[in-house]
Amino acid sequence: MDPRTLETPRLLLDESRMLANVERMRAHLHGLGVPLRLHVKTAKCIDAARPAMARPEGPIAVSTLKEAEYFFDHGVTDILYAVGITPNKLDHVLDLRRRGVRLAVVLDSLDAARLVAEKARAAHDPVDVLVEIDCDGHRSGVKPEAPRLLDIGRHLHEHGATLRGVMTHAGASYDCRTTDAIRAMAEQERAAAVRAARRLRMIGLRCPVVSVGSTPTATFAAELTGVTEVRAGVFVFFDLVMAGLGVCRLDDIALSVVTSVIGHQPEKGWIIVDAGWMAMSRDRGTAGQAIDQGYGVVCDIAGRVIDDLTMVAANQEHGILARRRGSTRPLPDLPLGTLLRILPNHACATGAQFDRYHVLRDGKVADVWARFTGW
Amino acid sequence: MDPRTLETPRLLLDESRMLANVERMRAHLHGLGVPLRLHVKTAKCIDAARPAMARPEGPIAVSTLKEAEYFFDHGVTDILYAVGITPNKLDHVLDLRRRGVRLAVVLDSLDAARLVAEKARAAHDPVDVLVEIDCDGHRSGVKPEAPRLLDIGRHLHEHGATLRGVMTHAGASYDCRTTDAIRAMAEQERAAAVRAARRLRMIGLRCPVVSVGSTPTATFAAELTGVTEVRAGVFVFFDLVMAGLGVCRLDDIALSVVTSVIGHQPEKGWIIVDAGWMAMSRDRGTAGQAIDQGYGVVCDIAGRVIDDLTMVAANQEHGILARRRGSTRPLPDLPLGTLLRILPNHACATGAQFDRYHVLRDGKVADVWARFTGW
Repeated sequence: MDPRTLETPRLLLDESRMLANVERMRAHLHGLGVPLRLHVKTAKCIDAARPAMARPEGPIAVSTLKEAEYFFDHGVTDILYAVGITPNKLDHVLDLRRRGVRLAVVLDSLDAARLVAEKARAAHDPVDVLVEIDCDGHRSGVKPEAPRLLDIGRHLHEHGATLRGVMTHAGASYDCRTTDAIRAMAEQERAAAVRAARRLRMIGLRCPVVSVGSTPTATFAAELTGVTEVRAGVFVFFDLVMAGLGVCRLDDIALSVVTSVIGHQPEKGWIIVDAGWMAMSRDRGTAGQAIDQGYGVVCDIAGRVIDDLTMVAANQEHGILARRRGSTRPLPDLPLGTLLRILPNHACATGAQFDRYHVLRDGKVADVWARFTGW
Repeated sequence: MDPRTLETPRLLLDESRMLANVERMRAHLHGLGVPLRLHVKTAKCIDAARPAMARPEGPIAVSTLKEAEYFFDHGVTDILYAVGITPNKLDHVLDLRRRGVRLAVVLDSLDAARLVAEKARAAHDPVDVLVEIDCDGHRSGVKPEAPRLLDIGRHLHEHGATLRGVMTHAGASYDCRTTDAIRAMAEQERAAAVRAARRLRMIGLRCPVVSVGSTPTATFAAELTGVTEVRAGVFVFFDLVMAGLGVCRLDDIALSVVTSVIGHQPEKGWIIVDAGWMAMSRDRGTAGQAIDQGYGVVCDIAGRVIDDLTMVAANQEHGILARRRGSTRPLPDLPLGTLLRILPNHACATGAQFDRYHVLRDGKVADVWARFTGW
């Protein structure tokens, strides 16, 4: 099918770009001698995830138990649920484990360790647990030097759960200003996780897993001694935030929203399209970067960037395209019905607005892959 | 079902608040003598829409043809597709009309009028068209005094389509600073639509429909002489943006996201919950208002606002709760697993992140209503 025949808006996935992104990360991590645990929160689709997975059974990381259910239904059994566990999800976790998922949970408090250990003992299931480490002050986790890290580890070990290891995520890498800063953040992430694991081992606990990751740090990590796995997900598609960080080029971005011109407001300097924030998402992740890309960078339907044209504002189903501030270029001639592609700020957020990918292969929409959202 | 047993995050709909919101708008518009054309882009669910609809067959406004398909499947036949029509949707529009939908489309250019008229003539279907009027410079539309308004009307009339009337939307009402300003904007919206209709009638064209609306202007309109219908949708649920505008109170907001405490970072002043931007959406509509509500206002599970606590930051599946800047209150004691409700910035955006409503009736989750997203 010609992408020009799509009823807009639609989510387009450029398969060759995706496969190149996957191969680049694979080669990089292979060189560092560390396997990837693909984070599937970006793709939420078995067809898009599979090329990045070493084996059909995983490993993967998930951000929701719905992702765990879906990927288990598609044959994946090695799954890390990478969001702090909460009481109302434990029965669901135990049920997934009973059904054959090697599902590990994450926690960062003694309260949570008590809860998980109690449930594990009652269910006669030594639930696998990773302790979350705070490597950058960005979100959750235990500081690697915190006394409670050892209390948590000891409690899990002594009361019926399995301390599998530690995990951390350098979310602060998204705020780095240079690739050197990302490289330093990768080392900070590695060092925090390795240090935490060492402390647990020093008191006699096994701690086989040392899990780190974010797409920026995974991309720029120079060495990963002591790390046993890297988690990343956005690199499969990339997006404008990653391009702004220097993690990819605009031409690497595999995801775009196909949209149609529905109107012109020449006196305002605007072209109106039928992709608004419902299609692009409300993510404005480039707003704090050196180049603010608005709601997205505008390309022609072949995927070539149109210079100085971005989506500067968005209503629910209307996008407003305009020249960048300071641009001297006139508005391009894009008649009613012209099809365009918009590169998104954030692949996870834009992807989540759609229930399928239209897969571009050799210039044609060669496949439609279902994806899911929700909990 | 007790809402405390939900696996979080989940979308909760307080039915009594919703019905009160619907009744208030109904009484107000009844007093003004103008019927409502419910905009279903907010609810995207027949059960949530029906109480606000005068009759099972409509009228409604939709923002996507998927909404038109869904509501037609549920018996609605009087539908306005309120986003500028584009060539790749015309066959779909004609198909819906053939199947029995009285579907009207919107346009604001002579190019679009030519296209629609040509299709209408070829299909022997005098497609109903409303011309979009720009009442506030906010988005799309023809200025009421523009010469091309008459050219468009004439072309439609003479070449096979049906000029049904005019429509406008005062999107600028969302940026008003006072309710007096909203009242003035309502009059500006009314006057622009009525003026445009009068000009079309002066050249001998029929123009039976004069359609206006936004939730703020519908709420504060003092009189609607010459208007034949009002479109609004957000009022069914309301949200923090509407509360910030003075259109509703916090206690009127019928939609909230149920979430669990998953961690504590006391040294940072944070409580971490399992609703991030994937649940709340990335909408930061209150950022430009007098009170920035972050990603949402925190309530206890009974719906009582917890003073000075908002979601100040969000990752995909993590929300960070903190006291408002300047608050002297200590962090509340909310142990791991505590259930909370977060009031959203924007009902349309937050609702779109979920595939169902958990309907709260007499303190219980008494119903689950499916909702849809996408195109």
